[in-house]
Amino acid sequence: MTFTDSLAAAWARNDSLLCVGLDPDPAKFPAHLKGRGDAILEFCKSIADATADLACAFKPQIAYFAANRAEDQLEALIRHIHEKHPGIPVILDAKRGDIGATAEQYAREAFERYGADALTVNPYMGFDSVEPYFAWKERGVVILCRTSNPGGSDLQFLETGGEGGKRRLYQHVAELVATKWNAGGQCALVVGATFPAELAEVRRLVGAMPLLVPGIGAQGGDIEATVRAGRTASGTGLMINSSRAILYAGKGEDYAAAARQVALETRDAINRWRR
Amino acid sequence: MTFTDSLAAAWARNDSLLCVGLDPDPAKFPAHLKGRGDAILEFCKSIADATADLACAFKPQIAYFAANRAEDQLEALIRHIHEKHPGIPVILDAKRGDIGATAEQYAREAFERYGADALTVNPYMGFDSVEPYFAWKERGVVILCRTSNPGGSDLQFLETGGEGGKRRLYQHVAELVATKWNAGGQCALVVGATFPAELAEVRRLVGAMPLLVPGIGAQGGDIEATVRAGRTASGTGLMINSSRAILYAGKGEDYAAAARQVALETRDAINRWRR
Repeated sequence: MTFTDSLAAAWARNDSLLCVGLDPDPAKFPAHLKGRGDAILEFCKSIADATADLACAFKPQIAYFAANRAEDQLEALIRHIHEKHPGIPVILDAKRGDIGATAEQYAREAFERYGADALTVNPYMGFDSVEPYFAWKERGVVILCRTSNPGGSDLQFLETGGEGGKRRLYQHVAELVATKWNAGGQCALVVGATFPAELAEVRRLVGAMPLLVPGIGAQGGDIEATVRAGRTASGTGLMINSSRAILYAGKGEDYAAAARQVALETRDAINRWRR
Repeated sequence: MTFTDSLAAAWARNDSLLCVGLDPDPAKFPAHLKGRGDAILEFCKSIADATADLACAFKPQIAYFAANRAEDQLEALIRHIHEKHPGIPVILDAKRGDIGATAEQYAREAFERYGADALTVNPYMGFDSVEPYFAWKERGVVILCRTSNPGGSDLQFLETGGEGGKRRLYQHVAELVATKWNAGGQCALVVGATFPAELAEVRRLVGAMPLLVPGIGAQGGDIEATVRAGRTASGTGLMINSSRAILYAGKGEDYAAAARQVALETRDAINRWRR
């Protein structure tokens, strides 16, 4: 099944647009996990098991594993999610971007080594830096468009010329992906929740393409505004990511239950504005 | 010593602007190395040992290690270079780009886990995605500006508005880095050899800032045009990268000697146009 199809199935089955971000920071782990060699894996597995029926996707962020020499735990985590929670796609958040020969190596890393269902990718180097990922036909390619961080505007909000008149760089990226890069239907875009007007503009430009939306919760984006701006006509089209607010909801041994509670509330808060 | 200082010392000591790119592809290794568990490390160590007196920097590309589950060999390689060839800086080519909290994890990965002297970074997400790396004061941050691949123009060549009149996106990035992001003097830029006129334009915009220049050799950039366009008044300022042409110069057991010969010729071909 393709990434897009399994995402659509998960939207329906779990009645959820919530993507659970897995950014494991050992310094924030409950005390009883500290010092364990497999703490990262245990922590993430517990969170995944506690939220799998509430999520449309999981998104592990590779930097948190790489900084802790825990690539093997990332491999084991994704294998665990696929075995225990089949049908919930895993998006590897690595924001890769390099020339074709190197992109092919990154694709092998993400799709073969880790078995990820989709990968986040940076568009700055252009089409041939994105194209190699499409050779894995079942996998998704989630391209940065408008990011939720303060410096997101430094380049993405610049006015650019070109055919069809003036537009911002992020609009140009959305159009490029929708009209040219997405011939195989494998693309999605990253658009931050902190800019609902721009999320609506991207939705207008890309039709029903899935959008990965970080920035609610710890980063301050508003759920109602995000859902109203980004939903498709059928009330889906979004993977609204929450990481820290869910992962670190509890500080004790019951952290997974606390995470489930926040995930449930977030899913339901999202659903209130879908239709 | 800072990255910039050790680079300047290496330029002088080895009379070289050549950066040796380490992109180890096991499919291209000499037959006698195939099947060895540490083939990547052995291959890269031999190349480094054979070219260390001819290079101003080494640039391992992390995708080639990650696709082969060889992070431990990358750690060992950089340790080996630092021990055996002190004073030759190692640039980890990973083109990272993410929000601040994640960028900090990537910085720990590059500078603490791997001990790299510099890291390549993507500017698409703006200043706060680059700033965390500056906390490691001795390390360099090499920011993508104008890349040498065919799709490099898709975004980087767009005309942008803003203060000071029209300019291309890559010019805007060069100006941003030179006038704002480089307050601590830790920055360098990536500018491809395939566009000498644009390399000259970046040199005009950034003064003596070091430029990492991929694209000679396998990618077809011309050495004379590159050096004339990119050198500083003192005939330095460049890390001209060559990877495949050096790594795969020989196919037999004498591959390191063949690599040395090509590195020597490339260094000398570069030096012909420096002054």
